[in-house]
Amino acid sequence: MTGTDEFKCRKRGNEMSEKLVFASIGMDHGHIYGMTDGLLGAGAVMKWAYDPDSEKLEAFVKKYENTGVMAAESIDQILADPEVELVATACVPGDRAELGIRTMEAGKDYFVDKAPVISLEQLDAMKEVIARTGRKYFVNYSERLHSEAAVFAEQLIKEGKIGRVLQVLGMGPHRIGKPRPDWFYDRSRSGGILIDIGSHQIEQFLFFTGAKDATISSSHIANYNHPQTPDWDDYGDVSLVADNGATCYFRVDWFTPDGLTNWGDGRTFILGTEGYIEMRKFVNITDNSGAPKMGHVFWVDKEGEHYENVHGKMGYPYFARLIADCKNRTDTAMDLEHALKAAELSVKAQMQAKKVAG
Amino acid sequence: MTGTDEFKCRKRGNEMSEKLVFASIGMDHGHIYGMTDGLLGAGAVMKWAYDPDSEKLEAFVKKYENTGVMAAESIDQILADPEVELVATACVPGDRAELGIRTMEAGKDYFVDKAPVISLEQLDAMKEVIARTGRKYFVNYSERLHSEAAVFAEQLIKEGKIGRVLQVLGMGPHRIGKPRPDWFYDRSRSGGILIDIGSHQIEQFLFFTGAKDATISSSHIANYNHPQTPDWDDYGDVSLVADNGATCYFRVDWFTPDGLTNWGDGRTFILGTEGYIEMRKFVNITDNSGAPKMGHVFWVDKEGEHYENVHGKMGYPYFARLIADCKNRTDTAMDLEHALKAAELSVKAQMQAKKVAG
Repeated sequence: MTGTDEFKCRKRGNEMSEKLVFASIGMDHGHIYGMTDGLLGAGAVMKWAYDPDSEKLEAFVKKYENTGVMAAESIDQILADPEVELVATACVPGDRAELGIRTMEAGKDYFVDKAPVISLEQLDAMKEVIARTGRKYFVNYSERLHSEAAVFAEQLIKEGKIGRVLQVLGMGPHRIGKPRPDWFYDRSRSGGILIDIGSHQIEQFLFFTGAKDATISSSHIANYNHPQTPDWDDYGDVSLVADNGATCYFRVDWFTPDGLTNWGDGRTFILGTEGYIEMRKFVNITDNSGAPKMGHVFWVDKEGEHYENVHGKMGYPYFARLIADCKNRTDTAMDLEHALKAAELSVKAQMQAKKVAG
Repeated sequence: MTGTDEFKCRKRGNEMSEKLVFASIGMDHGHIYGMTDGLLGAGAVMKWAYDPDSEKLEAFVKKYENTGVMAAESIDQILADPEVELVATACVPGDRAELGIRTMEAGKDYFVDKAPVISLEQLDAMKEVIARTGRKYFVNYSERLHSEAAVFAEQLIKEGKIGRVLQVLGMGPHRIGKPRPDWFYDRSRSGGILIDIGSHQIEQFLFFTGAKDATISSSHIANYNHPQTPDWDDYGDVSLVADNGATCYFRVDWFTPDGLTNWGDGRTFILGTEGYIEMRKFVNITDNSGAPKMGHVFWVDKEGEHYENVHGKMGYPYFARLIADCKNRTDTAMDLEHALKAAELSVKAQMQAKKVAG
């Protein structure tokens, strides 16, 4: 620790005793910024950051300079610090289980980016360490938790606007953009498309239908148009049936066209007995109304057709609940079984997927 | 034939020798009006109409009073008239194959509403009679053929705007509205939801992907919320893979909410290697721009996000082609194998469907 760091640390001593203290480890996926922002915005204090890649670490620490975050020299340094209560990570998906085990064995709670695991073995290991250590385990299914549209949709459903939820249909297109690191194209490290970005979709399906479990009716993967990375999936889809009879289908892909004004035209359609909701979370194509880019929610019910842009209006209640759960040892942010079930079904969908092209 | 009818008939004698003469038989489904309008609009002449239900027949003849159409006394009367070249029908789905056989054996071409058959036995019988008689067989897959949005989408794809088509995702919600006739709820007469309204979706998938065949990966039916008609499907979905590797998913249902300003918010998403198209064929929810209710096409490509309302701009080239095919014995309107394959896959999807609720 440098002298400056020690100063910063002392300066924040009192603050830390009240507030949740966390460290961010592993910046392989950009989600670490969203996770960090969410925690900071809800009042947590970031003491440490670490990534083995010094460039990534420097960029991260620079971005959060005004928080007083310190660059750690190793993961062990962070895990040995009794002040740290929570570790947040968006390291390579294949490494997330191992870091979780180390973190929880060190007596800290764990906030892991989706997908939290890439195999059923890793999932079992996580279940074991959670049970053994009693630590909290949170998964950043950001396409719901970090989406104001989804927060609003949850409210509409609770208000009974669309009746009983029968089906969730999701489209999760993503832009590939500039070349990604090697791990991204390596199935043994990223898990595959249905794990990587499909897990968001399965989590939303279980959540919005209130299901505890589901069976996979069919799943497909393809490499339609990226022959230079033949073992990688540029497309995937899954059809599921929940234990309560609700159905789900989603498609994920890496085909966002260059001309789209955001990274992906993610849509979620929630069909109910009395109406339906459509979320256009990240862009409402060709909209020139001056509304914010994100957060478009449309719904149709008995009364009529409705639209609201909820960007900046809902916030992200998940992060405050997560912090409260760590402090009070409660379970308000997300049901653990639910978080693990979404991970399990994502892995199973990927394992069972039929490769249809490439 | 009444005196008035004979007069009308003589009056139109010359006209009929040039133009295609058709008869409309069976008004059980309202599609008969769209089929009739399409044929009349493309220059055909309607000589006869018939339905065993005299109320239905009267209403139909009254609606087309100014065309000079005559109410026939029986199907046989129409089939015995050598002037009639084509029979159009939207009779009960289960009866469409039998009428087709009678029509083609009488030496006339046949224009049948979707779904044209409700069993593989009926499909085989149709194939046999088509081969034996050499008559033309046209199926009214109206959600593409009678949709200007779909005509425009076809053009965008041909122009290469979205590259190679990888996936077609369709939603076909319908409003149940006022109580339907008994046959509608009787699986042995309507065939079930994946045949009745799913056939539209499969036809579009095969068409837009240019596939010749496909396999069904999974299909579901449900009766989620209509316990008074337990054997009827209010929901269905299918996941398919084409012989060229393209994928498809569609959902059909009878849950259009009361507040929607049209009968169903049908959507079709066509994903390509370079872009995608979204059709909002029947309504663009909450749109208050003054654009027509129908015919909204959005597409995103390398250049940007685009929107056009094509209502009244494209027309329905299918009907003129159909008439030309009858007159010239050509095959320009729709490939016969394609029309039959869509019917076959609809029946198979229904037969294989897992019932998930009700």
